[in-house]
Amino acid sequence: MTNPLPTGATIGILGGGQLGRMLSVAAARLGLRSHIYEPGANPPAADVAHATTTAPYDDAAALTAFARSVDLVTYEFENIPTEALDIIEAITPIHPNRRALGTSQDRLVEKNFLQGIGLNVAPFADITDAASLDAAITTIGTPAILKTRRFGYDGKGQARLKSPQDAATALADMAGAPAILEGFVSFTAEISIIAARNPQGEVACYDPGENIHRDGILHTTTVPAKIPARLRTDAVLLAAKILNTLDYVGVMGVELFVTPQGLIVNEIAPRVHNSGHWTQNGCAVDQFEQHIRAIAGWPLGDGSRHSDVTMENLIGKDMDKVPALAREANCALHLYGKVETKAGRKMGHVNRIT
Amino acid sequence: MTNPLPTGATIGILGGGQLGRMLSVAAARLGLRSHIYEPGANPPAADVAHATTTAPYDDAAALTAFARSVDLVTYEFENIPTEALDIIEAITPIHPNRRALGTSQDRLVEKNFLQGIGLNVAPFADITDAASLDAAITTIGTPAILKTRRFGYDGKGQARLKSPQDAATALADMAGAPAILEGFVSFTAEISIIAARNPQGEVACYDPGENIHRDGILHTTTVPAKIPARLRTDAVLLAAKILNTLDYVGVMGVELFVTPQGLIVNEIAPRVHNSGHWTQNGCAVDQFEQHIRAIAGWPLGDGSRHSDVTMENLIGKDMDKVPALAREANCALHLYGKVETKAGRKMGHVNRIT
Repeated sequence: MTNPLPTGATIGILGGGQLGRMLSVAAARLGLRSHIYEPGANPPAADVAHATTTAPYDDAAALTAFARSVDLVTYEFENIPTEALDIIEAITPIHPNRRALGTSQDRLVEKNFLQGIGLNVAPFADITDAASLDAAITTIGTPAILKTRRFGYDGKGQARLKSPQDAATALADMAGAPAILEGFVSFTAEISIIAARNPQGEVACYDPGENIHRDGILHTTTVPAKIPARLRTDAVLLAAKILNTLDYVGVMGVELFVTPQGLIVNEIAPRVHNSGHWTQNGCAVDQFEQHIRAIAGWPLGDGSRHSDVTMENLIGKDMDKVPALAREANCALHLYGKVETKAGRKMGHVNRIT
Repeated sequence: MTNPLPTGATIGILGGGQLGRMLSVAAARLGLRSHIYEPGANPPAADVAHATTTAPYDDAAALTAFARSVDLVTYEFENIPTEALDIIEAITPIHPNRRALGTSQDRLVEKNFLQGIGLNVAPFADITDAASLDAAITTIGTPAILKTRRFGYDGKGQARLKSPQDAATALADMAGAPAILEGFVSFTAEISIIAARNPQGEVACYDPGENIHRDGILHTTTVPAKIPARLRTDAVLLAAKILNTLDYVGVMGVELFVTPQGLIVNEIAPRVHNSGHWTQNGCAVDQFEQHIRAIAGWPLGDGSRHSDVTMENLIGKDMDKVPALAREANCALHLYGKVETKAGRKMGHVNRIT
């Protein structure tokens, strides 16, 4: 059993974006330091980190020095090269573990895993070429979505098939990358549950939030989600099953479709999740601190909520709304310090206490 | 009129303790960077700052470089040498202003200021020698407290006089420093009000909290204070009067005695204040962000509270309670990352949402 990390210990974080930034602040709140590893210059997380390494993920010397300078390593995104993880793991523990990472890095592996532990997922098929796509369309039908198995996020690496005639175009969009075809799920709502597990095996969940997407990017999360108590229980139980099966340590975001037949797991993210940002202003222990508590072997917060919250992402030109948002009562601003505003770029979010 | 500081601008903070640390996190939340100036090595604030300068307050070159690297300067404590401020102010603005700092640095100046704007203070007298002390005891009576005019905090630089016979011992305790004698105030409660003012002249206050001290150090602050609505209004009005008179920009902590004759101002602190830490878990905009908003020329949060809170300081060996506190529901931990625990040292605090 891991001893809890003491005051002054250092957590290494792979990735210096907004998630790394908010993890770093949470670590500080527990008296811990953070060391950011990020290839890009001036990452948002560096503004609130004890130390920052600027180096690519194929720099073995930098990775080695980084791993030696910290007590354990975590990450803010799942697409970390395997070789980098191998170098780090030879020196210091990585949480969440490699199995969780490997599972979530590949949509086919993930779907097989979820189905294998008895959870419902959308109908899916492994697509390697035009013939396997044609066969899958026959089984699954259209509408459907073709998705790359790896490196997809915020709607990237996806092509919709309205009818079988779209097959060739959709396959071309994959640019030869391995893919899966997913059947269309007719859902009444999309929710997510943020769950955590520590090395002692304690599991804690926040109440599910209801998500609205725009252009494939999360727009708002409203907590609590308007779902029957029965489905809340289902969400907690299935999240716990995923975490326990993976011997998971850390916070996980689990995206779910609400359908007349019950919950269908859309995808899992082995990290703090955009749909959990509401916890910063709704709970005594937010998802970022919960993740740090879990990986540091501390007791978990119980996930209880003192306030209902709607989180809204500030994307690209939404930053123009900041002066008005700063005047709004019960509206908590969380800006990421990104100097350059780009279309589709997550610049910050607000939590409205309702 | 000052333009609001934009994303990526840098706030210089004099002092790298826990207040500088929490100010730095708040600045980051608004997309701003912080640069800490602190003579001591490894200051708590450096863990969450964009940059840190380690240099004494008489290092003109370091102060100059610091002032040139930031957009404005603020501070976490009031006992900054005048010469250091002169160097900085020749280069960049300091908020809160020099008048506020000068007033609060000297108990005699402070008392005269407060009385001069019509507020009630404890009876006081300027003490320069044994003769002036004897005369003051005759007028003010005993019990009374002899306090150094400058550099006192957390009960340091104070001597109690139970009777006129204690005069010589008390005066010796001052070690020749200029002092004031303060008459004893019979109060039913001690409260404080955290108020803010921005360059546009907007003023916002949080609801007063009730303070309990132990050994001269703040132990708990409970919000709301159990006082009549009339006194809450009085507290807000007098705080606004202080801030407006000083043309103040930033957050101020105002300590008040509740007496049968109304409120008596104990002292003012031209900075974020320990008795305002509860706002971190009670409000959408906490006192640290409020201070940054004020000095950065942003709109102020309105001070509204979503939850009642009791703040408890973790001092010295109180750190032994952290494992139990981490298991307590609705208890938010705020540790300062100080590796060495010392008796009387503020190591962290908890906010219990009630």
